[in-house]
Amino acid sequence: MKKMISILLVLMLALGMAGSVLAEDAAAQTPKYVFMFIGDGMGSPQITATQYYVGALENEDSTLPVSADLSFTTFKNIGIMTTYDATSFCPDSASTATSMASGEKTLSGVINYNIDKTESFKLITEYAKEAGKKVGVISSVSINHATPAAYYAKVESRNEYYDIAVQGLTGNTIDFIGGGNWNKPTGDGTQKDLYEIAAENGFNVVNTNEGIRTLTADAGKTLAVVPDHQDSYSMQFEIDRQRKVAEGADSMALSEIVSAAITNLDNENGFFLMAEGGKIDWSCHANDAMTSIYDTIALSDAVQVAIDFAAEHPDDTLIIVTADHETGGLTIGFAATAYDTHFEYLQNQSMSYVDFDSEIGKMRDEGTGYESALETIEKYYGLTTKEGSDITMTSDEVTRIQEAYNLSMIPKSARALDANAMLTYGGYEPLSMAVSHVLNNKAGIAFTSYAHTGLLIPVYATGVGAEQFAGSYDNTNVFDKTMAAMGLTE
Amino acid sequence: MKKMISILLVLMLALGMAGSVLAEDAAAQTPKYVFMFIGDGMGSPQITATQYYVGALENEDSTLPVSADLSFTTFKNIGIMTTYDATSFCPDSASTATSMASGEKTLSGVINYNIDKTESFKLITEYAKEAGKKVGVISSVSINHATPAAYYAKVESRNEYYDIAVQGLTGNTIDFIGGGNWNKPTGDGTQKDLYEIAAENGFNVVNTNEGIRTLTADAGKTLAVVPDHQDSYSMQFEIDRQRKVAEGADSMALSEIVSAAITNLDNENGFFLMAEGGKIDWSCHANDAMTSIYDTIALSDAVQVAIDFAAEHPDDTLIIVTADHETGGLTIGFAATAYDTHFEYLQNQSMSYVDFDSEIGKMRDEGTGYESALETIEKYYGLTTKEGSDITMTSDEVTRIQEAYNLSMIPKSARALDANAMLTYGGYEPLSMAVSHVLNNKAGIAFTSYAHTGLLIPVYATGVGAEQFAGSYDNTNVFDKTMAAMGLTE
Repeated sequence: MKKMISILLVLMLALGMAGSVLAEDAAAQTPKYVFMFIGDGMGSPQITATQYYVGALENEDSTLPVSADLSFTTFKNIGIMTTYDATSFCPDSASTATSMASGEKTLSGVINYNIDKTESFKLITEYAKEAGKKVGVISSVSINHATPAAYYAKVESRNEYYDIAVQGLTGNTIDFIGGGNWNKPTGDGTQKDLYEIAAENGFNVVNTNEGIRTLTADAGKTLAVVPDHQDSYSMQFEIDRQRKVAEGADSMALSEIVSAAITNLDNENGFFLMAEGGKIDWSCHANDAMTSIYDTIALSDAVQVAIDFAAEHPDDTLIIVTADHETGGLTIGFAATAYDTHFEYLQNQSMSYVDFDSEIGKMRDEGTGYESALETIEKYYGLTTKEGSDITMTSDEVTRIQEAYNLSMIPKSARALDANAMLTYGGYEPLSMAVSHVLNNKAGIAFTSYAHTGLLIPVYATGVGAEQFAGSYDNTNVFDKTMAAMGLTE
Repeated sequence: MKKMISILLVLMLALGMAGSVLAEDAAAQTPKYVFMFIGDGMGSPQITATQYYVGALENEDSTLPVSADLSFTTFKNIGIMTTYDATSFCPDSASTATSMASGEKTLSGVINYNIDKTESFKLITEYAKEAGKKVGVISSVSINHATPAAYYAKVESRNEYYDIAVQGLTGNTIDFIGGGNWNKPTGDGTQKDLYEIAAENGFNVVNTNEGIRTLTADAGKTLAVVPDHQDSYSMQFEIDRQRKVAEGADSMALSEIVSAAITNLDNENGFFLMAEGGKIDWSCHANDAMTSIYDTIALSDAVQVAIDFAAEHPDDTLIIVTADHETGGLTIGFAATAYDTHFEYLQNQSMSYVDFDSEIGKMRDEGTGYESALETIEKYYGLTTKEGSDITMTSDEVTRIQEAYNLSMIPKSARALDANAMLTYGGYEPLSMAVSHVLNNKAGIAFTSYAHTGLLIPVYATGVGAEQFAGSYDNTNVFDKTMAAMGLTE
């Protein structure tokens, strides 16, 4: 107690407060602008790997290891939260986003309904809307995927993509939604196009990069989707986006969507903006470490936009950065490399497993031989059978690649994968998995799973009300703390 | 700024401070008692696994997952720190303890010397001693092992066990040292016994449980070592200690050593006490999840002693709980179990890998057959070939056990392990490893390494000055923050 009093005193004197602050109204000290960033699957291992990768690349001449800061890792208020849901310690994105959006635990796969699926929950975005704020929802995956959906929809199953979207478009919660496209835009294939429904419901529908980049506040309620969507109507993996931009294409980064949303949403009552880096999860499901690192960088860049905005509105902005769960059981350390890591090896990779799956598809269609496949692997991952490279494959590794190549050249419908093959490839394209596993392990990285794990998740917060987010708690408390920080009550 | 002023105001009003605190002396608000707990190898995965195991056992009838709090997971001030050393992102206990004890990075294996090994560092314990405090060092492993050594010794290599001990006994830093015994008590076997040196240097040498339990402040400078030491002169693994106590033996817990140290060290100027749970690391090196969970519980119990002490001295106590690094690349989630976990399966294990190694040694000596070995496995791990158990082994698992049994029955000197066997067993007793891996994986737990990993490490702090430990930082800053909290300057 003495210590606390003393700290207060010192702070007061430092701030030159004297007795002059007594007229301040405590209730007014809530953030006008609230940013909620969710790196799907971005546990501490994903953050660490990115810090070490960036550190290694920025200090290539250093003989000592150097870690780099990401935009949010310097935030002062740190929390650690449990993320289990009502089904498992290894939870689902639907249930975990529900916990953060509405403060309740539910079953894996359920969005904003209780365990019995008899009652729906009221969302942080609904409270924010009632308080006069505009609401934005962004995702780098499809915008009716589980995480973004939990901020505007209530459904018994995350697979109800079409209903989720309709709720978002016909409800009164969303002012801006964007990033990836709608998955299943015509539902079962015969239902009314979601973009038509959007227009009918007053949404300004923007589907060009130029249109998104030139959005204004006057544009009103907006649906902004990138034209060059990738798997399942998601935005490009950052590693692919950067490669394609280097090759001359125009492709938007998550940070640009956040910028556009801020411009569009800004108003005198402020906004609540949830932005998800959804493909960190997808790449970790596929054990593709380098791709997850690029998407973590993309999220860090997106947070930087909010940090820059907060610098202009320091008394009015709260930024929260967290994850829903860890994915893949990523570890920085592997039995064969023991205490060594070689993050610099990862820079040889320039393509996500999704784009490489497409390359494999071409190989299969064209009957590409093994030697030629090895050339493609070397082109996009650096792994080689030639002597003298840092990442020359061992004979064991070559065997793993060849076995996977043989399997991948069999048409998918004709493959018979036994339990061991399922464990080795996780149901993904065998050659993509083998290449990722070999490169990961050479770098000193490993995964233990193709699913989500139960690791505790860090929360980083800065700005007005950020002190709420310090300490150990459950993911349901993210809702409570955000409500408290915003001065809202249920 | 407005927000901060408002918070200060609200706090001041809540505290009934008015203007009456102006005479307080800020410099006086430093902790008289400082506890530094280090769970060696205790990363967030080890903590999570323990929370989920305890939660599962305490709520066996629950159909929903339940997580339990450990003594320290409710601390309000949370930090996340990088732990890489000057050699690697996957660091060593010597270098990481050096960073926390002296604020400097060094090479793996080095204790309190710089990278060039030309200059030694000044330790937090030396500063504390100069400030009039008594100093205690406790470890559940041998007390001249790297982590405890970093709090009282300066050597170019952690392997200089004898010199480390001599420095501790002849220097002026230590007032209490205890827990495990000295490793290499006669150095090369011909050097003067360390217990003799202790007595000559004024140490009250106590080596009975009764003696440790009845220690007083009057006993003066004390060396307190448990009589029933286990591998490398360490205290018993908690799982073995509990089994042996249940069988009627007397064996001391880490928490009892902390109690004894507090009684012995308490004085008007206070103390700095470092207590290490060192066998969390040892069990994770050996991928023995259940044993690491028990040792994490033992550390939590030891922290509870400090929490109870702090309750009596709330204005004078600082407690910090952290780790030096993660060990083993433990993950809560495994490819074959995907989203399922079965922490309750782990309670079938009642023996550490070290005691089971002894059982295997007996099997080898006695030529125990495979069927009989299976009975021993079932007795201590629950794993069975009989149908109907939750943890009946699959045929693949039985094959893994049998292969490991075959290897373990070969005398160690006659074994030829190829690279694959090294990856599978990490240089440990094959049958112990196979049993642990099978049980871990059935529970939904996996490891990726037999070494330390580069995962960021959480810091939990409570009490006077604990707010110093919130945020993201490097392990060297633990020294800076502890110094600042104690009001000390270099």
